[in-house]
Amino acid sequence: MTVFTLQFDRQIFLGEYWQQQPLLIRGGFADFADPIEAELLAGLAMEEGVDARIIQHHNHQWDVLHGPFADYESFGEANWTLLVQAVNEWFPEVQQLLSAFRFLPDWRLDDVMVSFATDGGGVGAHLDQYDVFIIQGAGRRHWRVGERMSGLTEHCPHPDLKQLQDADFPAVIDTVLEPGDVLYIPAGCPHHGIALEPSLNYSVGFRAPNSAEFLAQIADQLLASDTVYPRYQDPALDSKQAPFFVNPQEVAAVQQLLQQQLASEQGQQAILQVMSQAKRPLPQPDQAIDEQQLLQFAATDMLIGRSPGARILLDTNNQLYAQGERLGYCPDSPARDALLAIWDECPLAECDVLLADQQLRRWTCELLNLGVFYLVQELDED
Amino acid sequence: MTVFTLQFDRQIFLGEYWQQQPLLIRGGFADFADPIEAELLAGLAMEEGVDARIIQHHNHQWDVLHGPFADYESFGEANWTLLVQAVNEWFPEVQQLLSAFRFLPDWRLDDVMVSFATDGGGVGAHLDQYDVFIIQGAGRRHWRVGERMSGLTEHCPHPDLKQLQDADFPAVIDTVLEPGDVLYIPAGCPHHGIALEPSLNYSVGFRAPNSAEFLAQIADQLLASDTVYPRYQDPALDSKQAPFFVNPQEVAAVQQLLQQQLASEQGQQAILQVMSQAKRPLPQPDQAIDEQQLLQFAATDMLIGRSPGARILLDTNNQLYAQGERLGYCPDSPARDALLAIWDECPLAECDVLLADQQLRRWTCELLNLGVFYLVQELDED
Ligand SMILES: O=C(O)CCC(=O)C(=O)O
Ligand SMILES: O=C(O)CCC(=O)C(=O)O
Ligand SMILES: [Co+2]
Ligand SMILES: [Co+2]
Repeated sequence: MTVFTLQFDRQIFLGEYWQQQPLLIRGGFADFADPIEAELLAGLAMEEGVDARIIQHHNHQWDVLHGPFADYESFGEANWTLLVQAVNEWFPEVQQLLSAFRFLPDWRLDDVMVSFATDGGGVGAHLDQYDVFIIQGAGRRHWRVGERMSGLTEHCPHPDLKQLQDADFPAVIDTVLEPGDVLYIPAGCPHHGIALEPSLNYSVGFRAPNSAEFLAQIADQLLASDTVYPRYQDPALDSKQAPFFVNPQEVAAVQQLLQQQLASEQGQQAILQVMSQAKRPLPQPDQAIDEQQLLQFAATDMLIGRSPGARILLDTNNQLYAQGERLGYCPDSPARDALLAIWDECPLAECDVLLADQQLRRWTCELLNLGVFYLVQELDED
Repeated sequence: MTVFTLQFDRQIFLGEYWQQQPLLIRGGFADFADPIEAELLAGLAMEEGVDARIIQHHNHQWDVLHGPFADYESFGEANWTLLVQAVNEWFPEVQQLLSAFRFLPDWRLDDVMVSFATDGGGVGAHLDQYDVFIIQGAGRRHWRVGERMSGLTEHCPHPDLKQLQDADFPAVIDTVLEPGDVLYIPAGCPHHGIALEPSLNYSVGFRAPNSAEFLAQIADQLLASDTVYPRYQDPALDSKQAPFFVNPQEVAAVQQLLQQQLASEQGQQAILQVMSQAKRPLPQPDQAIDEQQLLQFAATDMLIGRSPGARILLDTNNQLYAQGERLGYCPDSPARDALLAIWDECPLAECDVLLADQQLRRWTCELLNLGVFYLVQELDED
């Protein structure tokens, strides 16, 4: 497989650009080789269960069609684009692209959307809620990107499409992307891409839950445990207060109860549990694996890999988390390093340091049974 | 209807007993008249959708049976008790009992459980998570109540019954309750009642959500609104940090996002919305009512009442809440007083101050349509 490495200064990027301002990384990927071809992408968008859209325009009229698509004949030669979500879940070569972005926290990494646009194709000028890196594959697109600014108004030329009212926002980047060029666009920055020829773009997206989503997910984690949680207690009550009146001390008592819960060790663990959860359900193994079977597989040519979207996290107390579960205390060791290093498929037989450690062997089984890891037969390369 | 008034010093109670220590209020209800008869209770427990249990014991063996019950013959003359939840939702006379407890905040008030016990009947020594007032109706029971203490161990003599391992806990109250006597038992205080003869007890319970339940309900309220919530943002990231590592600054950034959400005006509103929600779904009106119909009904002998379990709350900014909805700004006025006063059924025709105010008339319709209020034809008393 290709190793993708993003060539730029991480430290300057993290200090000055990440979540702050857009950046053009010209030639970010040297000799960039597309991890998927347009024909394969079009084929994927014909499958049930794949989230695919076609956006086309015609005399300032916009149309959005949802997949799966039967064929592409009717769309013609120009002014449309096919967008497919989470392509990394279907193509290991696309998943591979994500390795280049592991200078950012794993739990923030979301998925890879791939778009194939014909001449003049694009989604129009718009804003996103997420940070994104857009990698130019085959072909060329003209991109304009502005800084985060106030006064931009959005409208929907089609119920499924939100665009900026004015595509003429002031741009700090206005350029034609060539294969291997990378754009970084922070959440909330206006951007607009138009294909100059049939072309592929790869969008590496980062998730950032909002406060309400995060609260709901944390509450779910807390409720799933059988811990006895502290209950609301009244502040000093006034015998003359009307029963329907809720005074500020009562509201403050609720806030304090909740804030203490979030700040508690359990609250912190629930936060890590939420961070470690994949956005979509992970593919489940056909049957549970035990330690003995694992060791038997290690004597074969079986490969082990990490499922796209799965996260394995470690907190400052060396607690290990994956897929919403707290596995337990896992101090630094070569076996731990081996476990955390599993990302691309690699021969299980080479995981001897990992498999020699009883606790980590157990967790490897647990992670396989959760769908965080998967086992697969090595394919002959030809 | 009977007006129930609890005779005791509220101020001393709130300052020294509420949520702190048990209290015996001898003769709390003077000339107490049972709002329901044992036969009616037994009949109610024969209905689908009523939460009823029978707990019986025999040579230190405990059994729990769940309703609806077909008959009571098989249970014999002694050593069993019938417990029915939320009897106030079925009998307005029992709902009436709750008026006596409106010296406490309405949102804390839960429901009335009624138990009928035969000679020797009881549920065994136990702890509860909730504060409760137990009113002695017909008959007598021997009650022992202890202070909150550590070292009490619980066990389950039956999967559906949790008791204290040791029924001999040190008691601060050890007495025989006579009709009209009231026991107050704070959450977590051991208590044990044994019927000396066929007898009725009324348990007025108070709810106190735990931190995880409260968080989940607040999150639901926030998610139900179409507000754009702030998203997680990374603290300064270290380019040398491993991608799987979550550092304390990241956890703190999540905590801060959530704590700001809870402290925000929207967070405070969500807290009131949760407080104002009934535990069980409210009975829905057959059809929506509009202002014109409401005024027409006011010319008839229709009664208006508040559904058991429904709450109408007012915060310190005069925002009015009911059944999870924020109705809006409602400054002090005679019409507001009239709205908030609706608890027991009263003739709609007498609500002229309320109905003369356009905004409050609208809200009255909204509350009727939410099931917070209901309309009912006056019954001839005979
Ligand atoms: O691929 C495209 O045309 C749109 C990409 C984009 O706007 C994004 O990833 O945010
Ligand atoms: O009515 C009974 O026998 C039990 C009442 C009780 O324990 C309670 O209400 O907490
Ligand atoms: Co975009
Ligand atoms: Co109890």
